Amino acid sequence: MNFSSDNAYGVAPEILEALQEANLGAAGGYGDDELTARLQTEMSRVFERDVIAFPVVTGTAANALALGTLVPPHGAIFCHSEAHIAVDECGAPAFFTHGARLAPIKGGGGKLDPCSVEEEISRFGKGVVHHSQPAAISITEATEFGTCYRVREIEALAALAKRHGLKLHMDGARFANAIAYLGCTPADATWRAGVDVLSFGATKNGALGADAVVFFHQEDTRDFEYRRKKSGHLISKMRFVSAQLVCALEEGRWLARAAHANALARLLAGELAGTAGVEVAHAVEANSVFAYLPDETIVRLRARGARFYDWGQSSGGRTLVRLVTSFATCETDIERFVAVVRPELVKSGRGA
Amino acid sequence: MNFSSDNAYGVAPEILEALQEANLGAAGGYGDDELTARLQTEMSRVFERDVIAFPVVTGTAANALALGTLVPPHGAIFCHSEAHIAVDECGAPAFFTHGARLAPIKGGGGKLDPCSVEEEISRFGKGVVHHSQPAAISITEATEFGTCYRVREIEALAALAKRHGLKLHMDGARFANAIAYLGCTPADATWRAGVDVLSFGATKNGALGADAVVFFHQEDTRDFEYRRKKSGHLISKMRFVSAQLVCALEEGRWLARAAHANALARLLAGELAGTAGVEVAHAVEANSVFAYLPDETIVRLRARGARFYDWGQSSGGRTLVRLVTSFATCETDIERFVAVVRPELVKSGRGA
Amino acid sequence: MNFSSDNAYGVAPEILEALQEANLGAAGGYGDDELTARLQTEMSRVFERDVIAFPVVTGTAANALALGTLVPPHGAIFCHSEAHIAVDECGAPAFFTHGARLAPIKGGGGKLDPCSVEEEISRFGKGVVHHSQPAAISITEATEFGTCYRVREIEALAALAKRHGLKLHMDGARFANAIAYLGCTPADATWRAGVDVLSFGATKNGALGADAVVFFHQEDTRDFEYRRKKSGHLISKMRFVSAQLVCALEEGRWLARAAHANALARLLAGELAGTAGVEVAHAVEANSVFAYLPDETIVRLRARGARFYDWGQSSGGRTLVRLVTSFATCETDIERFVAVVRPELVKSGRGA
Amino acid sequence: MNFSSDNAYGVAPEILEALQEANLGAAGGYGDDELTARLQTEMSRVFERDVIAFPVVTGTAANALALGTLVPPHGAIFCHSEAHIAVDECGAPAFFTHGARLAPIKGGGGKLDPCSVEEEISRFGKGVVHHSQPAAISITEATEFGTCYRVREIEALAALAKRHGLKLHMDGARFANAIAYLGCTPADATWRAGVDVLSFGATKNGALGADAVVFFHQEDTRDFEYRRKKSGHLISKMRFVSAQLVCALEEGRWLARAAHANALARLLAGELAGTAGVEVAHAVEANSVFAYLPDETIVRLRARGARFYDWGQSSGGRTLVRLVTSFATCETDIERFVAVVRPELVKSGRGA
Repeated sequence: MNFSSDNAYGVAPEILEALQEANLGAAGGYGDDELTARLQTEMSRVFERDVIAFPVVTGTAANALALGTLVPPHGAIFCHSEAHIAVDECGAPAFFTHGARLAPIKGGGGKLDPCSVEEEISRFGKGVVHHSQPAAISITEATEFGTCYRVREIEALAALAKRHGLKLHMDGARFANAIAYLGCTPADATWRAGVDVLSFGATKNGALGADAVVFFHQEDTRDFEYRRKKSGHLISKMRFVSAQLVCALEEGRWLARAAHANALARLLAGELAGTAGVEVAHAVEANSVFAYLPDETIVRLRARGARFYDWGQSSGGRTLVRLVTSFATCETDIERFVAVVRPELVKSGRGA
Repeated sequence: MNFSSDNAYGVAPEILEALQEANLGAAGGYGDDELTARLQTEMSRVFERDVIAFPVVTGTAANALALGTLVPPHGAIFCHSEAHIAVDECGAPAFFTHGARLAPIKGGGGKLDPCSVEEEISRFGKGVVHHSQPAAISITEATEFGTCYRVREIEALAALAKRHGLKLHMDGARFANAIAYLGCTPADATWRAGVDVLSFGATKNGALGADAVVFFHQEDTRDFEYRRKKSGHLISKMRFVSAQLVCALEEGRWLARAAHANALARLLAGELAGTAGVEVAHAVEANSVFAYLPDETIVRLRARGARFYDWGQSSGGRTLVRLVTSFATCETDIERFVAVVRPELVKSGRGA
Repeated sequence: MNFSSDNAYGVAPEILEALQEANLGAAGGYGDDELTARLQTEMSRVFERDVIAFPVVTGTAANALALGTLVPPHGAIFCHSEAHIAVDECGAPAFFTHGARLAPIKGGGGKLDPCSVEEEISRFGKGVVHHSQPAAISITEATEFGTCYRVREIEALAALAKRHGLKLHMDGARFANAIAYLGCTPADATWRAGVDVLSFGATKNGALGADAVVFFHQEDTRDFEYRRKKSGHLISKMRFVSAQLVCALEEGRWLARAAHANALARLLAGELAGTAGVEVAHAVEANSVFAYLPDETIVRLRARGARFYDWGQSSGGRTLVRLVTSFATCETDIERFVAVVRPELVKSGRGA
Repeated sequence: MNFSSDNAYGVAPEILEALQEANLGAAGGYGDDELTARLQTEMSRVFERDVIAFPVVTGTAANALALGTLVPPHGAIFCHSEAHIAVDECGAPAFFTHGARLAPIKGGGGKLDPCSVEEEISRFGKGVVHHSQPAAISITEATEFGTCYRVREIEALAALAKRHGLKLHMDGARFANAIAYLGCTPADATWRAGVDVLSFGATKNGALGADAVVFFHQEDTRDFEYRRKKSGHLISKMRFVSAQLVCALEEGRWLARAAHANALARLLAGELAGTAGVEVAHAVEANSVFAYLPDETIVRLRARGARFYDWGQSSGGRTLVRLVTSFATCETDIERFVAVVRPELVKSGRGA
């Protein structure tokens, strides 16, 4: 019953097998290898156009390197006030951009609303030397609250970005979960909608440590490679990172794993929604469930070994918690969890 | 016959097994796991004192994070003019220190000589606000030329560092090869000699991607963890990096693998030294052989599939090349290589 | 009728005289001169304790150097959402701190409310490596809206800062105007209330280009001098900057000039407050008047040569404007301005 | 007898008068004023083409802002090992470029030799991601040793720079002294020879605090203005800095003052060269004299109040000293100095 994070469970078995296979013979270092070449091919196939994909080992590195390449030191980056880049990266975007400013904006369900973004942009005088200069919008897909931007919502933000001369970055740490939910093509949710660069996450979706910065336009990659090296993110035995990504993309494994996680989140949410005293807080579209649980239920769950994070302070006897499912979550994990939440439903022989 | 780098060959089988084992069940993220705890224990055992070890995935990250933690933005770092931090990290130390200056110093065999360092330090006026301020000395063990500082040489540089109030950093990307050669304890070559922080390399020695920053003094770790996170180097599934390091340290595997690589380098050097027209350039103490080969020999070798790097421009019909052995190099690799260098020695049925 | 900024009018005559006097004979460079020594004495006299004062030539440099010295790259700085450091310095605090994050907080009248600050601080998990770490609070005295924190308000914010281990910085670009209004001692409004470092502004108050970073605690000055040099702010002929500051402090000239500007702001506000269709927006305590003027009045004023900035967009036929008085503003400037606003009051022979 | 620096003496009287004149009436802030506009006109006249000139208050700021605008964080800057940017700016170029590397090169008389520069450039593999990338050459005119590059020497370095795709920066803290010596036009020594950007110094030549970054190509100025603001170098009452520069340029005053300083340096050098036991170390072309003086002479000089810097350690009873003349140095200063060096020549009634 570990719902603490999609990082809690380890590595998908097929990924470990891919590492074994990658280990035959010698190969060039720093990406000069066959698997990294295949990664370009696979990514281009999946996105239906030539893309440039750079493997890295953390989502923070992917986001910060993408933004560092696109945003000058005097730039401003517009993002949701709960975005990972704003609250969970200890200032990595500022470090990699050499000082650019984050402009966090509130918005329902973890999503940015174009009107709010436009209003915030207008507060930064374009061309006024005293002000940080609007340079990029960053959105998270799926969002930090387990919701998904629809394609037309991404298009609206992209149109806004283009109108103001900004780049559009997508933090796709859970991109697989979003695509599995939306049912659209990866292309539709990204470059066709106007996204310039994507942090493609595989780590939360069963990889050991493998994300990729995917650029849709060659001209945007400028000095990316120097920035990656200079930040210590050029992996010497890169083939073992590329292997994880290739394995995920081949045969649609990335989407199958994400669909599984999503389905279990929906299952969990459905059970919770039907429970007295429990309230599900956001639309459950990807692999996270946010719910207000009675504090006594929370105590009981933890006593039974359930792991999850509080997402706010207790109020009125209830606390908002985050429950994350993953590729490795089983239906019995859900059943056991629900059994503790609703003990009256437990049949003989079930429960923790 | 791949002598291009100790990164050319992949992962030691026992390391891959360790990854498999690490994959059982759920675990905390970002280092809150049992394997990372065991890493502290193993490192402390190996170094015979309590140390603080932070796993990262590249040697550049290890060096840059170590220096970033110890050196202020207005500091100067004294290192060999051929040090990895000076020539092969695209300015990573400057990035992580927010602008500190490298002061490269020439020295025979890839080693710093205390007199030259002292002279260079004296050129930076201590306390003079116009000058970058001496802050650290960085040495590489084994050096970029395959030689090893003796313990007393490290002690002399450490004494110099202490006298001037500087920290002593050791880039140990090939620390295992040095210890295997020197036959001393890891403690003797580091903190007992006066080293403050060590970049402990496992990647070049059979790991998939695992190095560690090892601090010998708690008070030096100050804001290391924030720096690591901010630079995108806090690995979410850290147990898989720790597992590689633990596996290497247990049962002395790291030293056994390094001893093997060293032995093959000596074997290769011995064969080359006895060849007319070939000259070995540095003492062969770790796992690199630097040799002047006739240009025609080089052409022949490459035609037969041998891989290695030139280390200078051709002069007088010869070129300096670097030949690196690794944990995975076999005696037959050496034999085949030598057979191409000295075709007159090849018996029937051997060669490429 | 130039009410655009306290920078619009030039240099007080006595300041220019002080420059003439400073020009006799040779002197040491970079602050090794008698006038810079006198500055320490004068500042210590004015603040009733030993302080360390560093002259610089812009307020942005003063703020950014002060914050850079006190806040680590992974730190967070809490400030008002309209603070100069947040909106008018193009990211200087991020540049000088090497990436620290600004956390802007809304608050009435340009002032921070301790409750709002505490709430915001609590959103940054102290010691959680994923989050920027609370490091400083920065307040502006007088504020960007011409209001002044009372001593007890400063004390409350200082207590909050101390409780959370934060430093308290005061942007005193208009510190003279605040002290002239409050009538308290400079010590009461700063270190006695708990301020750690003050950006003391003289430029807006009649100097040519002279502000000072005033530290109240020696231990906070650590590497300030290296940071100043490295950022190009160590002035070679520093005596000419120190001379301006000494001249201002001697015989209370700084307060006399500020009191004059404040008085004219009050005069202007009084006249405007009594005008139909005009509304004064904030308490007029220092030398700025914020007022909603009918758009037609604004057109008429500008046609007559009045200069001032709009401070928002027109709404309901009115626009918020900012009117700044200075040491050089005359009563007749006010009279002429008011005459255009209220033409019915103009007697013969007056007006623009 | 102050020969310590060209900063030792204060401000030329005409510069102070220019400040008085600049103080009439109100003006726009931050360069939106008539004097800053006139500066563009004057600079363009002096350089015989449209240039873009940005006033700043220190030479370090001018150099660092110029380099920051032209050199990326992963770039390398080639300069003389004794260049001001290398030894006297506490790492400012690294700070403003966000980490670029200085590659100091030795060279006789403070000058870079194209062959040495080319050799050093070749050590940085162009396009190799592990290496800092060659980005700019910086030369000092007049050099730190009081010598002057000839126009054809500048052309040779510029040709080298162009061939490798590098920018050419000129640190002209003593540009006036160089032009006064060379007798060529400012255009010939800069853009016609291939210089891209010039740090034009006026502070050492009688200004209070006024240098300028002069770009010869509009496209190179990109984000200069944001960098200047962000580093705290956008002066609010900029007209007072521009006034100093305009005053210097008008009627050739800058060259007249520099010619005076040069002449006195030559006078001093001539006297010293004819003295037993004294040796002049470099060609005396600008306003510095480097000479080996007997240690006992040095003691005697200082006892008589002479001020100057040692430029090395005593050896064989002599020490290299630097003697700098300025616009304000008088012939009697030279006479008095020489009288102490050669007491046998002193007639009655002279001496200190």
